[in-house]
Formats: sequence, structure tokens, C-alpha cells
Amino acid sequence: MDEWKEFPRGKLAALLDENRRAYDEAKRRGLKLDLSRGKPSPDVLDLSNGLLERLDSYYAEDGTDVRNYGVAAGLPECKRLFSDLLGIPADSMIVGGNSSLSHMYQVFSVLYLFGPPGHAPWCKRGKVKILCPCPGYDRHFSVAEDFGAELVAVPMTEDGPDMAAVEKLVIDDESVKGIWCVPLYSNPQGVVYSDETVMRLATMKTAATDFRVFWDNAYGVHHVFEEHKIADIMKLASEAGNAERVCYFFSTSKLNFPGGGVGLFASGPENIAQMSAHISKQTIGYDKIIQLRTVRFFGNAEGIKAHMRKIGDILRPKFELVLAALERDFAGTGLVKWVKPKGGYFVSIDTLDGCAKRVVALAKDAGAVLTGAGATYPYKRDPRDSNIRIAPTYPSLEELRETMALLSLCVRIASAEKLLETARG
Amino acid sequence: MDEWKEFPRGKLAALLDENRRAYDEAKRRGLKLDLSRGKPSPDVLDLSNGLLERLDSYYAEDGTDVRNYGVAAGLPECKRLFSDLLGIPADSMIVGGNSSLSHMYQVFSVLYLFGPPGHAPWCKRGKVKILCPCPGYDRHFSVAEDFGAELVAVPMTEDGPDMAAVEKLVIDDESVKGIWCVPLYSNPQGVVYSDETVMRLATMKTAATDFRVFWDNAYGVHHVFEEHKIADIMKLASEAGNAERVCYFFSTSKLNFPGGGVGLFASGPENIAQMSAHISKQTIGYDKIIQLRTVRFFGNAEGIKAHMRKIGDILRPKFELVLAALERDFAGTGLVKWVKPKGGYFVSIDTLDGCAKRVVALAKDAGAVLTGAGATYPYKRDPRDSNIRIAPTYPSLEELRETMALLSLCVRIASAEKLLETARG
Repeated sequence: MDEWKEFPRGKLAALLDENRRAYDEAKRRGLKLDLSRGKPSPDVLDLSNGLLERLDSYYAEDGTDVRNYGVAAGLPECKRLFSDLLGIPADSMIVGGNSSLSHMYQVFSVLYLFGPPGHAPWCKRGKVKILCPCPGYDRHFSVAEDFGAELVAVPMTEDGPDMAAVEKLVIDDESVKGIWCVPLYSNPQGVVYSDETVMRLATMKTAATDFRVFWDNAYGVHHVFEEHKIADIMKLASEAGNAERVCYFFSTSKLNFPGGGVGLFASGPENIAQMSAHISKQTIGYDKIIQLRTVRFFGNAEGIKAHMRKIGDILRPKFELVLAALERDFAGTGLVKWVKPKGGYFVSIDTLDGCAKRVVALAKDAGAVLTGAGATYPYKRDPRDSNIRIAPTYPSLEELRETMALLSLCVRIASAEKLLETARG
Repeated sequence: MDEWKEFPRGKLAALLDENRRAYDEAKRRGLKLDLSRGKPSPDVLDLSNGLLERLDSYYAEDGTDVRNYGVAAGLPECKRLFSDLLGIPADSMIVGGNSSLSHMYQVFSVLYLFGPPGHAPWCKRGKVKILCPCPGYDRHFSVAEDFGAELVAVPMTEDGPDMAAVEKLVIDDESVKGIWCVPLYSNPQGVVYSDETVMRLATMKTAATDFRVFWDNAYGVHHVFEEHKIADIMKLASEAGNAERVCYFFSTSKLNFPGGGVGLFASGPENIAQMSAHISKQTIGYDKIIQLRTVRFFGNAEGIKAHMRKIGDILRPKFELVLAALERDFAGTGLVKWVKPKGGYFVSIDTLDGCAKRVVALAKDAGAVLTGAGATYPYKRDPRDSNIRIAPTYPSLEELRETMALLSLCVRIASAEKLLETARG
């Protein structure tokens, strides 16, 4: 195909007409499609229905009756399971509630209200800046924003955040206090942080002595194509004397049931001691029944990996369908840029500048909900208005095919409209 | 029996000897008893094992698949269940996590970090004072203490907090920001707040326009003897223009499984809107599976009441045993004061001044753990060192009998020691 930006006005107008007609026809079919959020599909959830079976014995391995109060930091066998899976020492972690996001918020609460160990509470500071690799995860940015932090965009590269940019920001400015990271299969691009990126994050000099890397390993075992690994940031940071820098999060939300499983926070010994002290004031214990169910269901780390391979088998055709549709409709047109995600939950595309909002609005009018344009940037403002996150995990293949066809029409319409603004005679 | 304080030195010394011998004998039996915390016993937990059965259908009544993301404020049918049970409008509540204590902490976090609607964050204020009716619940006091509030003790009466003292404290001092309340079957005395107390809490004039009543209705349906009711504080406060004053908490922890159920926060519309906004930043949703299980297990409010009658049948003999032991061993001695609790989870006793710590230490040395002396007062400091909370719910009747016998020995020893300090020749 040819690059659309080379097309003369007449050809663009004809393409606009043609695609609008197809779009109107699609609209009349009254679609109801949702590619907005990273939700597992019912057939993926079905793989975990064993969690809903009768719990025959409610005693943990140390004899604890999980139906009663106690065990604030998590059942030992549940900590061991995640320790084996993720390579984090069990005594560096707290296995907690049903949502890793709520643990992230809890960590921010402690940083703001009580301060990092040995430091003033962030709420007493004039300004706190948090680095946000973009495109990134809207809910991460919203947590920092809720506490009043200033969100500073940092570009993503195919190796993770642009580390030269990061290092420049942290080296002199003491108000730069942290960075959000999804190191394996980043949301939304599916980028894998390189070993060098991880090493630099773990060891870089920062003006703030209480700098934090918010390390959300949300897709830590969510392989779709080949398996990738990331370097052990907790070990690297610890060896560099930065043990307290890393705040590591994980959850089973995308292993079995979102919001119906177990979340995890891991960090250096001072952070864990501080967090444990505050947790002891706010709860007598997290839900140990679901912790025990999780252990019984998976058995061990290998059980989780086998389970994730089944999920990967369901997700792979969806990703392949999206990528094939993009290739078929946009290769050579110059209208859409994308990179094949290495794994995870999303496909990220970039339209021509100034087209993303229009594309999402057109899709919505025709019954297909996409993640809001701009969501992947701080304050939901994409400076180029070009990034769109596609979440292919929830719909069926047939729904996905329909949505991608509609998305193509929307992109062509928005692109033609945009190009007509400046096209030559 | 005679009042021990009238006894001459010789008689006290003889009693001390006699009880020490019995105590030493008890100690040699190597008891292992725990009356320290308000935990349900295994046979009470067994009543709820239906919650552990296979969950056959995972769709909520509106079709929501509870295995997936969403529904931040709680399943509608779960809100309706608690609305029917407690008489709180469903739109005034958030049904959330597994612990009402964590909801209390969350409310304090919002008050401190973001401020009550229309008011400055409490963390920006010089001083915040929280009223603590005593004896009271140690974990309540610890929440306020964790945020740096000054804890101000207020005496309990048989109608609830001494309202004359409360009104005097709140009327002029703008830094007095709240009061902890367990209105029905208070922890530890089992007091029922009178209608007048509730009315005064709901309507009293406070210097602080952001005064809060932290209303932990933890034992709202936990009748042991006859059933008691409390006045509707949310309605009374709302009618007096104080809708935002009441922060109402409840959980199923002592209905079925502690930490394995559902917690609830209810309040005025501004507080609920504010809390909902912050919750939307910290979680995509609470665990809806346990919410659905809760609804399926109880059926309706009448189902909860029937279930609580079964629990009451198990608890009643335990309370009767404790009260009979106190009557048998201490009536007329002047060594112990107690009032029969009207319900709930505890029996509160007062020893002679300066004896509570000694009693708890003696009991511990002989293998019986009681709640730490002083725990029922702010900063764990009982100014008279006399209050001890007995938690009779967990042990079996036989264990309880043994513990009460040991407790009697400990009280007699500590009392004789104390009286000998000042006894006449």
C-alpha cells in the first residue's frame, strides 16, 4: 500500500467517503464490543473454577485455622509459593489483600503520611514528582495524582524507560521521588525491560535519598509468545545499597480471578518493617481462606507456570488476530505504527498525530468501546493525541475480528480527515 | 463473704499463703489457655462452613460475573442484605473488604490526607484529639494513635459514654475531632447506648464543624441474652443537619469467619462520594466472590438473625459460667466489680486499684493468657490499673471453668498482696 500522506486531496476525499459508507453500515449493525480494559475472558476464568470448589480442610500447614483471626503477613505456604515463583525471599514480602493496586495505594499512603523510614512524610514536602514512562498504565498515574504528586512523562523505548532521560531527571532534583515500572510486558506496549535498564534503575544515583521504584510485575508470568525474563531488581538494588528503593508488587488477579485472589508487596527490610507495623493497626489479618485456596489450587510454582501456559494458549490467537489485522490494513500506509508486544495483555498503536481521540469517539459511536485516548499518559493528556491501547483479552475471536475491522474504518476516516486539513490540491 | 479490706494483716497473710499454694498447684498442671482476644470458637465457625462449599453459579443477580473485575462499591444484593439487616439505606454504604478495622483506618487516612469534605486535611493541623470512651477497644485507640491523634479518655456509664463529659470536651475545643463508639454491647463492658446517648451524639453542638462519630456497630446483631436495639444514629444525625458526622462500620467477621468475610462503611452523601472517589483510585473492586457467597449463605436478613441465635446459644453458657464464677468467688469480697454484659463478646471486670497488671502476669505465668492489663485504655495505660477484659468466646466450657478458677486465685493473690501494703496490724 502507499503512504496516505502522499495522496492528493481528491483521493483522500474519495477514501473518506468510501470508509464513511462502510462505517455507517457497520454502525447500523448495532455492535456492542468492549476492548477497553485488560479483563480475562470467561474461558480464561473457567480455567480457575477449581478455586470455587468446596474447601475440604481449612487448616494451614502450621495448623492455623484459616477461618479465624490472625496471621497478618500472609500464610507461610502462600509466601513460599510466590517466593518460588518470583525469586523473592519470603521474608521480604507481605501477602495481603485482593488487589495489588490497593497495596500500591497503601505504600503511597505510608510514604505521604508517615514518610519513608528516616525521612519526612511526603505530605509535608512542597512538591513530589513521580516519573511516568509513557505510554503507561493509567491507574498507576492516578494513584500518584490522587496524592497530589506531579506526574512527569518519560518516553518508553524498546528496552524500557529512556534511562538517559530518567537519570537526567533524578540526578539533581531532590523532589523527584519515584518512577512507575511494569518491567515485564509493559502496559500497554508489551516491552521487556533490558538487563541494563533494570541495573540502571537499581543502581543510578538519585538526588532524593528516599527515591522509590514502584515495580509492578503485573505480567511477571504472563507469557503469550516465547518466555522472557527480567533481571532481579531486588537483588541488584540490595547489592548497590538501595534495598529500600524497590517497592515490588504482584497479584494473582490475572492468574485466576481479578479482585478475587491475592496481592503481594515486597521490599527492603526497613520498608517491610514499617509497613508491617502500620498493617498491624489496620487489620487483624487479610483473608487467609483465599490464600489457602490459592495454594491448594496451584500446588506449587510449576503449577502456576503450567496454568499460565493454558492462558497463553487462549490469548495467543487473539494477539495474532490483532497483529494480522494491523498488518493487513495498515502496512505501508503510514497511518498506524505498532510493535508486536512480547507478552502481557495489550497491543499499543500510534495513529497519525491528532487522530486518537477521534478514532476512539468514532468507534464508540459505532458500539465499540476502546480505552480512552490519552489514558496512557499523565493527566490523560497524550501530547500527540496518537496512542491507543487495544485490550484483546476479553472479547471472543469473532468479536475481536469485528472490532478490528471497525477500528480500521475509524482510523482511515480520522486519518483522511486529518490529512485533508493540509493536503495539496 | 466479708469485704477483704476489713481483714487484719494476719488473715490476709493466711489467705495469701493458701491461694499461693493452690496457684502453684495449678501452675504445675501446665495449662495452656487463651482468653485474650475476641475470637469465635471452632464450633461457632462450624456453623458457617456452608461458605466453604462449592460456589455453583458465579453470576450476581444483575448478571455480573463475580470472578472478573468491577463493581467498586459492592454487589447490589449484598448491600441490600446489610441495608435490610441494619436499617441503613443501600446508597449510604460501601460494601468493601474483609475487615471493618481496615475501613476505619481507610476513613482516618482520608481525613488525615485529604481532609473531611470542605475542610483542611487533619495532617495539616497542629493537633487532633479523639475521644476514647473507657474501658474501650484497644484497636480503635491504636488507629487514632497511628495517625498521631491525641487520645482523650472519657468514662463509660451504663448508658454509654458520659455525655456530660463528652459535651464539655467538644463544645469549645475545635481540635476535638471525633469519638470512638461501640454502641451495642460495647467492648468490653457489653453496654447498650441509651436512646438519649445516641440522640446527644447525633445532635450535640461541637466546636469542630468536621467532628466525626466513629460508630463501630461490631456487635449489632450479637445478642447473647435478650435482644437490645439502639437508636438510628444516621437518621437522627441527618435530621439534625449532621449527616456527615457519622462514620458507620460493620462486618461479618463475627457472623461467620473473622477476616474471611465482608466489611461495610456507611456515612453521609459527601463522605460516601469522597470515599468512593478515592477507592476508585486504589482498587478496581473488592472481592465480589465472598460478597456473593455471603448473600447465598445467609439468604436474607432473617437468615442472619437465625444464624446469630445459634451463635448466641453457644455463647450464652460461656457468659453464664463466667458470671457464675465471679459471683461465687467474689460476691461480697469487694475484690472485683463487674456488671453483667447485655450481649457482645466480653466480660469486663475491675479489680482493686493497682492489681490488674499483677493478675494478668500471674495468670500468664500459670499458662492463661488474658488481654493485657491497660489495653482497654488509651496508650494502654489504665490510670487505676484495675480493668481486665475477659474474652470467653474461644475456649470450651471446660477450659473456661479452669481459667476462671485460676483467675480467681490470681485475683486473690494480687489483692492480698495489695491489701497487705496498708493493712492494719
